[in-house]
Amino acid sequence: MPTKPPIGRDTRLCMSLSGRPGNAGSRLHNYLYEALGLDFIYKSFSTRDLPAAVAGIRALDIRGSAISMPFKEAVIPLLDTLEPSALAIDSVNTIVNDDGHLTGYNTDYTACRQLIEASPADPAQPFILRGSGGMAKAVVAALRDAGFTQGTIVARNAVAGTALAERYGFSWASDVPVAGAPLLVNVTPLGMEGPDAQALAFPAEMIAAADVAFDVVAQPAQTPFILAALAAGKPVVSGAEVIVLQAVEQFVLYTGVRPSADLVIEAARFAHGDATAARLAATGL
Amino acid sequence: MPTKPPIGRDTRLCMSLSGRPGNAGSRLHNYLYEALGLDFIYKSFSTRDLPAAVAGIRALDIRGSAISMPFKEAVIPLLDTLEPSALAIDSVNTIVNDDGHLTGYNTDYTACRQLIEASPADPAQPFILRGSGGMAKAVVAALRDAGFTQGTIVARNAVAGTALAERYGFSWASDVPVAGAPLLVNVTPLGMEGPDAQALAFPAEMIAAADVAFDVVAQPAQTPFILAALAAGKPVVSGAEVIVLQAVEQFVLYTGVRPSADLVIEAARFAHGDATAARLAATGL
Repeated sequence: MPTKPPIGRDTRLCMSLSGRPGNAGSRLHNYLYEALGLDFIYKSFSTRDLPAAVAGIRALDIRGSAISMPFKEAVIPLLDTLEPSALAIDSVNTIVNDDGHLTGYNTDYTACRQLIEASPADPAQPFILRGSGGMAKAVVAALRDAGFTQGTIVARNAVAGTALAERYGFSWASDVPVAGAPLLVNVTPLGMEGPDAQALAFPAEMIAAADVAFDVVAQPAQTPFILAALAAGKPVVSGAEVIVLQAVEQFVLYTGVRPSADLVIEAARFAHGDATAARLAATGL
Repeated sequence: MPTKPPIGRDTRLCMSLSGRPGNAGSRLHNYLYEALGLDFIYKSFSTRDLPAAVAGIRALDIRGSAISMPFKEAVIPLLDTLEPSALAIDSVNTIVNDDGHLTGYNTDYTACRQLIEASPADPAQPFILRGSGGMAKAVVAALRDAGFTQGTIVARNAVAGTALAERYGFSWASDVPVAGAPLLVNVTPLGMEGPDAQALAFPAEMIAAADVAFDVVAQPAQTPFILAALAAGKPVVSGAEVIVLQAVEQFVLYTGVRPSADLVIEAARFAHGDATAARLAATGL
């Protein structure tokens, strides 16, 4: 068991910047540093001055930063390089600082793409995806880059929906097509803790007729959509995998170390709770 | 025993900025946070861009920063307010950030003044002080503000020596006056670990004839000057007290909590070693 040294001059700081900082990132990263004996610490921040915050990352040689709402697009002109994952969706959720050179990545895209490619979903078949926000863009781009060519983006907002669909070569619909599709993807708040907690993102019969269910909602780890798919015996990808895998990809970018799947599950339990850890253990990353 | 929570969104970061960051500050502050259950972490940094580093302190709402060489004067125009401790010597070793408003302090001055006032040295009597650098300015200003009116600043460098002496109303000499003085103060590297480790800052007979010995050298905790004064049965103030008390004053400014003397000695043992802790325990703060 490696031992993490006390915080000192060689300790690297990693951080997050978001409008409403949470605790999950700090808990996940710090748990992994401790378990792996890495001389890093992780701390979440907010800011009212994004350019000065990014200047501070550079000036203090902070190793990396997660970037969340509302900074994912605004941060782009402050960076030196964008990696393909960020270019694919014009959105940065991760900065890596190499001696003052700041590179933007998007590990939401990377994680979604890895999870889609590892799932049994067949890219030769069509998908239906609900949603048109920032995370929907990451998933739609990942689907395209995983080889999917036929898909319907379902969004009430026709402007956002058609723009998203056209950019990635798919079609738009205002309501879920009754025909369904082998891959069903939810990137809306339907099923999320809060007012939509009971909402089922797709009709039960459509889920029963599909091959794979993918829900980006991470809280709870098992939404009504995921529970319905599991009850119908379908393979699922849940938001638990997305939220943990995207953080693990950040961890690898910052430290150069890839933690084992078992350790990731332990860290996810500490950061997100038992249900998320159970979901990861059941479906894997 | 209070328990420090895991690092999270409410954890406050304190830091240091210096040309050559050390570990002692991180060890001392983090030890005290842990012992007192305070939701803070402390990390040392360097920078090649001081204005951007200070902008980052503001933008990330970092609670405070120690400022060391070579930034103590250069940081002044980047702050909003200077406290009297910093104004007394035109030098800042501490920034406190109150919701974006940055105030500069100098806890070297504060600590030296407290230690001089707590010592048996009589301000109606003369002193001899060796040195003319930044720390000498802090000690000379503290002596003046503690009520001393007669003193000789001994410095090889006539320009720096006379400037320092004139600013605070004392006299200058290029060599230690043979008459000696009741209070002897060393603010040079004489006796410090390294090439001058064996050097005695004042002649042994002069030390034996003095009332109080004050050595700002902190490493080792007992210099030849301090050892000679102790052997002659004189009360001493050593660099161990200065370096620890100035850090404790920073700790109080950042957290609003004053640690007990026993806890400070424990933390000093963890940060600076047994000899420093023993020196503190022997002479107190």
